[in-house]
Amino acid sequence: MPMTPPNGKTAILLLHSPLRQGIAASLTEFIYEHGGHIVGHDQHVDPENQLYFSRVEWSMEGFGIAEDDLAEVFEHRLARPYQMTWQLHFSDEVYRMAIFVSRASHCFFDILSRHQSGEWNVEIPLVISNHPDLEPAAHRAGIDFHCLPIGPDNKQAQEVKQLALLEEKGVDFIVLARYMQILSGAFISHYVNRIINIHHSFLPAFKGARPYHAAHARGVKLVGATAHYVTEELDDGPIIEQGITRITHTNSIDDLIRKGRDVERLTLARAIWCHIQRRIIVSNGRTVVFSD
Amino acid sequence: MPMTPPNGKTAILLLHSPLRQGIAASLTEFIYEHGGHIVGHDQHVDPENQLYFSRVEWSMEGFGIAEDDLAEVFEHRLARPYQMTWQLHFSDEVYRMAIFVSRASHCFFDILSRHQSGEWNVEIPLVISNHPDLEPAAHRAGIDFHCLPIGPDNKQAQEVKQLALLEEKGVDFIVLARYMQILSGAFISHYVNRIINIHHSFLPAFKGARPYHAAHARGVKLVGATAHYVTEELDDGPIIEQGITRITHTNSIDDLIRKGRDVERLTLARAIWCHIQRRIIVSNGRTVVFSD
Amino acid sequence: MPMTPPNGKTAILLLHSPLRQGIAASLTEFIYEHGGHIVGHDQHVDPENQLYFSRVEWSMEGFGIAEDDLAEVFEHRLARPYQMTWQLHFSDEVYRMAIFVSRASHCFFDILSRHQSGEWNVEIPLVISNHPDLEPAAHRAGIDFHCLPIGPDNKQAQEVKQLALLEEKGVDFIVLARYMQILSGAFISHYVNRIINIHHSFLPAFKGARPYHAAHARGVKLVGATAHYVTEELDDGPIIEQGITRITHTNSIDDLIRKGRDVERLTLARAIWCHIQRRIIVSNGRTVVFSD
Amino acid sequence: MPMTPPNGKTAILLLHSPLRQGIAASLTEFIYEHGGHIVGHDQHVDPENQLYFSRVEWSMEGFGIAEDDLAEVFEHRLARPYQMTWQLHFSDEVYRMAIFVSRASHCFFDILSRHQSGEWNVEIPLVISNHPDLEPAAHRAGIDFHCLPIGPDNKQAQEVKQLALLEEKGVDFIVLARYMQILSGAFISHYVNRIINIHHSFLPAFKGARPYHAAHARGVKLVGATAHYVTEELDDGPIIEQGITRITHTNSIDDLIRKGRDVERLTLARAIWCHIQRRIIVSNGRTVVFSD
Repeated sequence: MPMTPPNGKTAILLLHSPLRQGIAASLTEFIYEHGGHIVGHDQHVDPENQLYFSRVEWSMEGFGIAEDDLAEVFEHRLARPYQMTWQLHFSDEVYRMAIFVSRASHCFFDILSRHQSGEWNVEIPLVISNHPDLEPAAHRAGIDFHCLPIGPDNKQAQEVKQLALLEEKGVDFIVLARYMQILSGAFISHYVNRIINIHHSFLPAFKGARPYHAAHARGVKLVGATAHYVTEELDDGPIIEQGITRITHTNSIDDLIRKGRDVERLTLARAIWCHIQRRIIVSNGRTVVFSD
Repeated sequence: MPMTPPNGKTAILLLHSPLRQGIAASLTEFIYEHGGHIVGHDQHVDPENQLYFSRVEWSMEGFGIAEDDLAEVFEHRLARPYQMTWQLHFSDEVYRMAIFVSRASHCFFDILSRHQSGEWNVEIPLVISNHPDLEPAAHRAGIDFHCLPIGPDNKQAQEVKQLALLEEKGVDFIVLARYMQILSGAFISHYVNRIINIHHSFLPAFKGARPYHAAHARGVKLVGATAHYVTEELDDGPIIEQGITRITHTNSIDDLIRKGRDVERLTLARAIWCHIQRRIIVSNGRTVVFSD
Repeated sequence: MPMTPPNGKTAILLLHSPLRQGIAASLTEFIYEHGGHIVGHDQHVDPENQLYFSRVEWSMEGFGIAEDDLAEVFEHRLARPYQMTWQLHFSDEVYRMAIFVSRASHCFFDILSRHQSGEWNVEIPLVISNHPDLEPAAHRAGIDFHCLPIGPDNKQAQEVKQLALLEEKGVDFIVLARYMQILSGAFISHYVNRIINIHHSFLPAFKGARPYHAAHARGVKLVGATAHYVTEELDDGPIIEQGITRITHTNSIDDLIRKGRDVERLTLARAIWCHIQRRIIVSNGRTVVFSD
Repeated sequence: MPMTPPNGKTAILLLHSPLRQGIAASLTEFIYEHGGHIVGHDQHVDPENQLYFSRVEWSMEGFGIAEDDLAEVFEHRLARPYQMTWQLHFSDEVYRMAIFVSRASHCFFDILSRHQSGEWNVEIPLVISNHPDLEPAAHRAGIDFHCLPIGPDNKQAQEVKQLALLEEKGVDFIVLARYMQILSGAFISHYVNRIINIHHSFLPAFKGARPYHAAHARGVKLVGATAHYVTEELDDGPIIEQGITRITHTNSIDDLIRKGRDVERLTLARAIWCHIQRRIIVSNGRTVVFSD
């Protein structure tokens, strides 16, 4: 529920907890009693698992708790009593996104376009690839590019380098823009629910390699794409967004690849948008997306 | 926000009002303090017009205000102070729907199918038509059918008969299932925001008669349908739902009509569903649809 | 390519064959030289498998080969030399469709509605079910209904009865309108590419039982339906049509089932339309659908 | 009907003419008798206006008519007798596209991305704008940029300069990528059916300025975009492609603008693809698009 366009800085609280009567009222009262003006409040209840989810955004102008104290006060006053899992963000924090690519450029270029046109409030300090092909494009966009090829024996060593670069650049989340390598569990553990992958099928159909070939062989009438957070189990992480497009018997595998590119671009862009807007909560392998 | 599946009877409050800080909290507190258990709460704020919209549903089991007193108490305690426009419903009230038809049967049959399969919690006591064609189908479904032909001179007289029938059958709302007559303002005034029409174009394109012919002539690549509440201005009422389907240069006008039928059926059915679920609020010529 | 609206009786030839240069010209010349006026000609070439597919429709008015001789002449003149697999239909043949149902009524009622409104040129002489629930609805529609319950031990015997009924009623093809029994290979062999099933997922995702439950557990953002010809391998037959609808985290399993019903209805109806229009050719486990 | 992937150079013939029996056969015979191997043949018949449309593509390898003579031979042998309107293209001709922009960058960047990733076989020698804002982006992409501001008095003079630049750069067609100026009839006459505009509504709804504002005011549940060839009548040219996306009551005008951008990008890109693939024929204010 968007309420008013925020003026100045806002706080955004994403949380979930066991469902208890009055939890929503306690949450809004906490904000009101300190003079906060709520500019957006989305809620969801999962009746099956008796869980409460909320995204609440309020103006920090005149709010009675200092920004630096807010986390501690909230933890004490609400999070602990209600057993909340929560994140606190402020609207002037700009996420720093790293992009991992291989050779395919369409998602990468689409991300750069949106970034360049100011569509997203995000910084892109780093591109990592296992191939050198997209280095010129990264440099044209003024972004550091590191080529770290992955062979049969060096994956662990290269991931150590990747992690060091991510650390150095202060990266908040990673987008795998058709990056054709599987990340290790150890790597993923540093960025849980902060690595977004685009898979070129409507999962759970056609997991793994060459989904357009498999789709063509099966004779489906739709092809799709799935943006999801990466987990150790391949193509099995929490789904953020999915899209499809219609195909017919006239379409070759190359046509599927071509038509699929538009679905991939758009599905990934929507997922990134929701992530940087702090609209996603992950719970039990699924997402709550307070989309707009 | 659906909270828990309701056990037993629930109250459903649909309201809108000028936006005031704390209005949401006042609303939920009113329910809690009388022992109500909220099972669903959807809200919307229109920042441009500074309006607040809400649909709240709570269990009447153990609720401290008797059903018969609730409207009066609510009016006194909340509606008047907050200048709310509101409706109160109870989950055991079953809406009574009249269907107006002409000759085209596809929307009519679709409605009967959904009714018969138990998809909708609604009663259909009355079908009115300006043609006799669909009488047998109405009778097979066990529904009263009245043929009231409209000529150049008898419209007012026939509308009087229609209103008498609607009154007699205790009709709550009317569905124009491709009824090819224009209702007078006088008639509409008895059922404001309670007459749903399906127009066979994506309004505001192709208002009026023969939209598929106009769409074909213009060479559009999409045809659509619009379900809206009827107002005196033709095809200009608040839009509840719209749908489209793709067409190509190979499609004749007859193909458009055929393909459009599926969009009409589905768009109308979705609008009816939202209406009988009490999910629609009309304000300033537009709808807030708390859809699921 | 629809050419002109056919006047009077037309012949429809569906064929596929190895691709040979000039095959299309030979086909159209065969029709022209006997005075046939082509009213529609769709073609497809599968370059990968070097196959040619065609659907050609021409007016029988003044055509120089008698209807009864046409198949033999065509076989001799074209089909044998070009190794064609083919079917010949005439526009005045009306397909006879049997419907198999269980308890769910939504697809069944949708089919009856379309039949009743004259949307399809088809006869429905027979409904077979393993439950008695839908007998009254079949009778209201004037269709014979046979209840043949399937238990652990009687499947073969019941299929013998089913086949006898289908034979007796002169059934051309069968629609499984959410029929919850698996047909044996022996049964299917009598109606190869003439049994259309609707599965309530976007295959190959969520094969088998309870796909909406599986979709909900996986947290997908789309649910779908697939109409396909039945083969011995469950949910693995040639796909005719697929549809999807968007869902969100707010939707329960019941919501998925409800929203999915509309996709199932529509997807099945489109598949039936293409089948009765003789627009589908099956080859190598996939379909060529000359859709309109 | 794509037949085989072309090896080497192909000829592409786009034509339409009055419908005459045997016209398709004459066309394919003409190609066969000179040793041409057809790699794709799409046809359409407009029965209402008795028109025949065709796109045929064949390999020039071993073809018995020299490339330079082909147009003349075809004109003499087929085009004149059948009164065909036609265009002849060869697959090694690369279209040269000019882009007109104003300040909005999303369509412009999307075009550059697709060009850069090799998705389109097209050259972009020229960008013209009435504002200087996008000059740096054009230069980064290595494309000439000319700023020609349009005021109340200089439109005709600036169009003369535009035409000179287009001529100088050998431009084949123009894309108005959210160019916010109206072209004069005189200008358009130089590029009939060769100027593609993207309008940010599903035409004919919301012609003219500020369609998202109008859509929001009307309360529609869908917003769309339309790619069309530019004619003198504003927003009234032959429609090539249309797309839509769903919106709800929660969406502000800014949300519509944001969501609409994705529809604009994609709809324009599809139209450009069809144009450079020589898949579009214009007739009577409508398009035949042999899309894939």
